[in-house]
Amino acid sequence: MTESKRKRRVLLTGAEGTIGAVVREFLSDQYEIRSLTWQAEDFPSHVGDISDYEAIRPAFDDIDVVVHMAASSAIETPWEDILPNNLIGTYNVFEAARDAGVGAVVFASSNHAVGMFEVSGSPGLYELDDPRVYDHTVEIRPDSLYGVSKAYGEALGRFYMEQHGMRVVCLRIGAVRAGDDPYAPTIINTPRPLIEPLTPEQRRQRMRAMWMSRRDCAQLVSRSIEADDVPWAIVYGISNNPRQFWDLSHAREVLGFNPEDSAPV
Amino acid sequence: MTESKRKRRVLLTGAEGTIGAVVREFLSDQYEIRSLTWQAEDFPSHVGDISDYEAIRPAFDDIDVVVHMAASSAIETPWEDILPNNLIGTYNVFEAARDAGVGAVVFASSNHAVGMFEVSGSPGLYELDDPRVYDHTVEIRPDSLYGVSKAYGEALGRFYMEQHGMRVVCLRIGAVRAGDDPYAPTIINTPRPLIEPLTPEQRRQRMRAMWMSRRDCAQLVSRSIEADDVPWAIVYGISNNPRQFWDLSHAREVLGFNPEDSAPV
Repeated sequence: MTESKRKRRVLLTGAEGTIGAVVREFLSDQYEIRSLTWQAEDFPSHVGDISDYEAIRPAFDDIDVVVHMAASSAIETPWEDILPNNLIGTYNVFEAARDAGVGAVVFASSNHAVGMFEVSGSPGLYELDDPRVYDHTVEIRPDSLYGVSKAYGEALGRFYMEQHGMRVVCLRIGAVRAGDDPYAPTIINTPRPLIEPLTPEQRRQRMRAMWMSRRDCAQLVSRSIEADDVPWAIVYGISNNPRQFWDLSHAREVLGFNPEDSAPV
Repeated sequence: MTESKRKRRVLLTGAEGTIGAVVREFLSDQYEIRSLTWQAEDFPSHVGDISDYEAIRPAFDDIDVVVHMAASSAIETPWEDILPNNLIGTYNVFEAARDAGVGAVVFASSNHAVGMFEVSGSPGLYELDDPRVYDHTVEIRPDSLYGVSKAYGEALGRFYMEQHGMRVVCLRIGAVRAGDDPYAPTIINTPRPLIEPLTPEQRRQRMRAMWMSRRDCAQLVSRSIEADDVPWAIVYGISNNPRQFWDLSHAREVLGFNPEDSAPV
């Protein structure tokens, strides 16, 4: 098999998570996926905590692209977990990738890096006829320490791209649900200032704008893995929803992302 | 003495550093300055390492404004020092300020948070007739892990401002020299990709654009301390130099900064 025809080798951190499962389910035919998880799972994985550089470094050998999904992903995550899992962990992943000569990292950022645009615009922002849209050029406005950690990860990715020639795509992913139902009555990752004021209908409207179907998520990750001519991008990840306040045009333009699903009105 | 007439109580972290010394020398008459240093100095200070929350927290009681200068400030600082001194330390400072009810933090950010604009524009960027100017709205482009840590500090400050109602001013300070001479032949904090290609004359031109006199630095810190109607700002700090590629107009506008010095042509 020639170099150009072999499947790309993808190291997937956080392979046990909601989005990790999406990548494994939808993209295992397309890529040779190697999983990295912090504890043993019921699928093959390299076991290591991303806050421990030496424990994870061997997993990066012979990898073409790292898809870095491992993190504490709850918006309420306290500093004690943000520090090892999101700050130290993300540095370790970029550094191990650099050390191993990996050419590209797809980084799970989050809309929470700029979530105060949502907080300050809510709830009117969720309405179908509200015109506001925020793109990848808006200023950093984290809504949580979690959001701060994602802004940090983007800055770190930018540095690794410019200093070390690594290709980096940052995905500000919206709300991917394990069961794919945008309106499932399970925990919603809502900024603290928003939790109290929102009515059930407003929460529904919020999810209508934030939802990303599992297959659209897989498509966005795949497009990011294959965008060899894109050295750097920050894009939002939502489905083609009836109301969108996170911009999709940049993802369409630079990555050719073309979401197939839409949250029901 | 009435509340409105008493001097503001300022906690100065990194009081032993180059800029800490400027603040102590120029602003001690104007404010009641309390110093925080990581080891005992020949002036009174609360001794504590900013990476140790419990060690520094008591210093924040009864403080009006924190001026946070403590950090590893060399551009080549390795991760092992960036982590405790710049990432953990800056979180501890913001969190201690919040916990103590401090109303404002002046944070020593750096032009290195966006230093790749300089790297990619150098050396033409230093010439007197080059028109390029970068303001506070440009995208984050760190030139070092040090620069990443400053971008992180700005994101953290933004979160504390919006979530906790703290006033935060981020200063992207240029080159303040202990002896105040812009062209003194001592260590210059130059991004690694720039070190090799620059001729001595180009290094001189670089300093002509980056220099900030000690009294201009003191004025900028003072303006930031007193800007009660400015909840948030990112500004650059340089003198009124003959060539300026970091924008001063925003500092003039929002803080009333009016630099008195200029690097000799």
